[in-house]
Amino acid sequence: MGEREPGDPAPYFDFHIFVCANRRPEGHARGSCAARGSEKLRDYMKARAKELGLKRVRVKTAMCLGRCELGPCIVVYPEGVWYRVDTVTDVDAVLAAHVQGGGRVKRLMLP
Amino acid sequence: MGEREPGDPAPYFDFHIFVCANRRPEGHARGSCAARGSEKLRDYMKARAKELGLKRVRVKTAMCLGRCELGPCIVVYPEGVWYRVDTVTDVDAVLAAHVQGGGRVKRLMLP
Repeated sequence: MGEREPGDPAPYFDFHIFVCANRRPEGHARGSCAARGSEKLRDYMKARAKELGLKRVRVKTAMCLGRCELGPCIVVYPEGVWYRVDTVTDVDAVLAAHVQGGGRVKRLMLP
Repeated sequence: MGEREPGDPAPYFDFHIFVCANRRPEGHARGSCAARGSEKLRDYMKARAKELGLKRVRVKTAMCLGRCELGPCIVVYPEGVWYRVDTVTDVDAVLAAHVQGGGRVKRLMLP
């Protein structure tokens, strides 16, 4: 597994959050994160992180992260923790407990 | 900065590589990774990682990673190392030296 080396440049961000915005056709067996509303949740998360003044956080769009059935999925790096965020309340919980609090939102973590 | 905690689930992948595939309109001052050919390089990287049998690696698409002027950009997590990959030779170098070799391709690293 990849690890930081002493010579690596300092990270640009403390938290780099990727939100899956992949959309499959209506009726696809696996569904998709966008079909479950991930784009609006991503926009909310971006705006909310800005409102909270979280300058060392970036919320970015990813295409399929491969865990469609469990979505809407996000993954928080560098720690590589995955969440399902289904509502703005879930987004708030991740920003408060994980990003600001340095903890975890156990109920939303993917197995 | 985010750090792994003892209770976190094991990572799904050893290397999670995000390739920016953001495309800005032709002539945009900042340019964009897709306008510099990142989509083909991403497809090549995905295919090549598969050919090499790198099962614990995922090459994924990201939208704008915010470093447009330096693109085509990729970032390798969990270590958070950024590269500019301009050719398939550059992609091969990252796969060989970083992913397979556990080192760095200094000439391609973003500052």
